Amino acid sequence: MGASAVAAGAVARWQGKEKSGKLRDYSNPQKFVQPKYASIRDMEAAIQEIRQATGDEDTISTDSEDLHRHGYSEWSSTNIDGLPVAVAYPKTTAEVSQIAKICYKYRVPIIPFSGGSSLEGNFSAPFGGVSVDFAFMDQILQLHQEDMDIVVQPSVSWMELNDELAKRQTGLFFPVDPGPSAKIGGMVGTNCSGTNAVRYGTMKDWVINLTVVLADGTVIKTKRRPRKTSAGYNLNSLFVGSEGTLGLVTEITLKLAVVPQEFSVAVVTFPSIRDAAAAAASVMRAGVQVAAMEIMDEVQMKVVNLSGSTAPRKWKELPTLFFKFSGTKAGVKENIAMVSAIAKAHRGGEFEFAKDAKEQKLLWSARKESLWSMLAMRKEGSEVWSTDVAVPFSRLADIIEISKKEMDDLGLFASVLGHIGDGNFHESILYDKTVPGEREKVEQCVKNMVARALEMEGTCTGEHGIGIGKKEALLMEVGIDTLGVMKSIKQALDPHWIMNPGKIMDVPI
Amino acid sequence: MGASAVAAGAVARWQGKEKSGKLRDYSNPQKFVQPKYASIRDMEAAIQEIRQATGDEDTISTDSEDLHRHGYSEWSSTNIDGLPVAVAYPKTTAEVSQIAKICYKYRVPIIPFSGGSSLEGNFSAPFGGVSVDFAFMDQILQLHQEDMDIVVQPSVSWMELNDELAKRQTGLFFPVDPGPSAKIGGMVGTNCSGTNAVRYGTMKDWVINLTVVLADGTVIKTKRRPRKTSAGYNLNSLFVGSEGTLGLVTEITLKLAVVPQEFSVAVVTFPSIRDAAAAAASVMRAGVQVAAMEIMDEVQMKVVNLSGSTAPRKWKELPTLFFKFSGTKAGVKENIAMVSAIAKAHRGGEFEFAKDAKEQKLLWSARKESLWSMLAMRKEGSEVWSTDVAVPFSRLADIIEISKKEMDDLGLFASVLGHIGDGNFHESILYDKTVPGEREKVEQCVKNMVARALEMEGTCTGEHGIGIGKKEALLMEVGIDTLGVMKSIKQALDPHWIMNPGKIMDVPI
Repeated sequence: MGASAVAAGAVARWQGKEKSGKLRDYSNPQKFVQPKYASIRDMEAAIQEIRQATGDEDTISTDSEDLHRHGYSEWSSTNIDGLPVAVAYPKTTAEVSQIAKICYKYRVPIIPFSGGSSLEGNFSAPFGGVSVDFAFMDQILQLHQEDMDIVVQPSVSWMELNDELAKRQTGLFFPVDPGPSAKIGGMVGTNCSGTNAVRYGTMKDWVINLTVVLADGTVIKTKRRPRKTSAGYNLNSLFVGSEGTLGLVTEITLKLAVVPQEFSVAVVTFPSIRDAAAAAASVMRAGVQVAAMEIMDEVQMKVVNLSGSTAPRKWKELPTLFFKFSGTKAGVKENIAMVSAIAKAHRGGEFEFAKDAKEQKLLWSARKESLWSMLAMRKEGSEVWSTDVAVPFSRLADIIEISKKEMDDLGLFASVLGHIGDGNFHESILYDKTVPGEREKVEQCVKNMVARALEMEGTCTGEHGIGIGKKEALLMEVGIDTLGVMKSIKQALDPHWIMNPGKIMDVPI
Repeated sequence: MGASAVAAGAVARWQGKEKSGKLRDYSNPQKFVQPKYASIRDMEAAIQEIRQATGDEDTISTDSEDLHRHGYSEWSSTNIDGLPVAVAYPKTTAEVSQIAKICYKYRVPIIPFSGGSSLEGNFSAPFGGVSVDFAFMDQILQLHQEDMDIVVQPSVSWMELNDELAKRQTGLFFPVDPGPSAKIGGMVGTNCSGTNAVRYGTMKDWVINLTVVLADGTVIKTKRRPRKTSAGYNLNSLFVGSEGTLGLVTEITLKLAVVPQEFSVAVVTFPSIRDAAAAAASVMRAGVQVAAMEIMDEVQMKVVNLSGSTAPRKWKELPTLFFKFSGTKAGVKENIAMVSAIAKAHRGGEFEFAKDAKEQKLLWSARKESLWSMLAMRKEGSEVWSTDVAVPFSRLADIIEISKKEMDDLGLFASVLGHIGDGNFHESILYDKTVPGEREKVEQCVKNMVARALEMEGTCTGEHGIGIGKKEALLMEVGIDTLGVMKSIKQALDPHWIMNPGKIMDVPI
């Protein structure tokens, strides 16, 4: 297939040996039509038409702060110069369909926006166009308690959803737990996961059906409401993770899980990050059902202590595994015993347990807030690069050890953490963009980690998605023909390439 | 959207109020190109070319028994008159690619074949063409024990795979367990499940990557080997369940699971099928982690007894739930106690446990062989109609009670059984095709069950797939625009509609 030669070339380019800076197209130019987007004048006409069609002045904004907030992200690893030309705030699926129809007519790019917490420039606007912010579509529409599912709009936050399920005493919860500010729409877009993924799987596993507005404004529903089906193509899993490049998701039916009887949260430290990673791989290989298993290096533990979120308690600043156990009382006890034995075999220390439900919650949120805690430590002018990869279990200890060493050698404030039970981890590096060459060094380090993950048969992203930042990595990962299949699907559903263009794959040029 | 009006019309037609018998196309005729298949002469030329290209006389057969075995199935609910014109037996992915290239050139339909155990005419050949039988691609290629995955060819049987994993003392197993004769290739095709799905999910959840030969012979690999990824479109889940209509799967990397420490198998009877179904829904709602939970009506229990497979032990011929519990010793004990309490609350009897590992295995295989046990009871001229649906939990008791009553009223040998923890169940009905009107009565009864499942927001198939038998049901289920999205994808990847044409959706006519 020659895919490895192609990939090697792409690795070389991407690792800095060739730098054109231009967007590239690797596919058959005859197969994919060159899209032509609306002129600024036509974009303005489209904005005017949207305003009239929805009968509401406030449906669409061109306020410059609004545009900035929807085109730039201070936590994204990649930002570009362009901004959207307008932000639309639809209130219903019908309004989203109207907006899409008008944008389709004028060839205006459409970029969906919900929580804005993505990390790879997933909502940036390289071709201008309209950012569709679902802020006013934030309702729980139906709760089917006996069926264990719920119908929500895209701007429902997963944390508020769980608060509401607890308040209504349903005994149910939604287990996918990415960054605290994420909302369901974006979580569908990136096929996100989080700390619970090792037990409960990722976003794709929790979607029963989607209502989607296609590029031309057609509204479809992917499925009815069965928890299991083999009826036709799996459109749920196609739209989940497509980052808004195939359609705008306006309603989501989610499976819910039963809240376990018992929880326990514990940490255990290791003399090296390699020992911690090897212990984690052994836990998986032993088939112990942990509810979550996270790795944090000594830097991240320091961040937890500095953030003061579990004060007055302080944690050892050593490579650490965080465990969450859940299930029945006896089950939790058994699992703790098994994991404790495995940790010891890998030179781990004693388990330190959170002493009560409150401390469990604090400790876990310290883990979940870690990126934000790091952001809070930034000095003037400093930026963060945070990116993720995933590899097969047997390579975890190797890649984490090598990558951490290379990162530490930068001499910057940087850490490794992640969802190690999925073979998935993150590097987060603070750097000063005003220091010449610093960003380039960081970029090289991160890209080396990605190239290493691919050499180990891993993936360039376990949960953040491709966005605008990892398109060449995706090409390296799957090769030109597989990317060609993705492009064919894109073109079939979005013939004018107006849906979040420039994400996942390049627009043909 | 008007989808419900469309669906109502389709329901009316499908339930017998309008019967054209013709294949229909509901989509925009301008959008989908009318395929033109090879003439018989061109098909012959293609066969000759395949023979030459592979350099092996035996790569392709036109033996009439061979054709019949690949175009007709005695356990499929739907059969058609046509047969393939040839059967190809490739030995490598490269040969599959050669075959596809030649078929693409001549516009010869290609129909993949592995275990041949599908039930909805999924491998029938309505437009002739070449059946590609993977019989000689039946090897385990790589076992990555530490990564808990395995690379296999399409004709590896899931049962032999598990025997091999046990023989090599890996402590691992592959949990998806459909009919005993199913093979991995076909299991990918229909996104099959089985009794373990309630605990372990369905086929789509166990595929790490696929090697696929596309319509034009291009070979792609969907992903590398991470257990979790958000890199680009989820092509695994698109090909899984696409029934060979998008490409030929030639290699599959599967996740493996750790064999639990402890197993227990038990049955509990109920005074009515409604009680049994309601108890099952309560088990799910309580969040008890059962390894499997199957419903069998009194007829199926009789079939188990008659088959003698657990002799001398006999089971009560009453509506019954079969449970499999697995996990740690304490976990299994706890789960049994919880389920036992729920069963009692629904008028269930005492648990009867299989007395040892051997009886566990016998009892479970009696369940798994149930369709074949029924087939063995057929008299001369009798046929079986076996089909499945799935609904949300809250509707399970209703649909099973009504459907069983309607089925019993036929006065035929018929039973209800199924994977009730997934909301999924089957009707199997024996009928005599020589008795005028009998097949029509059965068809009406089955179709009423499907229509009822859709009214309850369920699906026309939980695990068997659409094949040739449920295309109108799929239209009813998802509506014309969603089917249009599926057709667009089909056309993008298979522009001449040569891949298993006439399955899932109609060829445009």
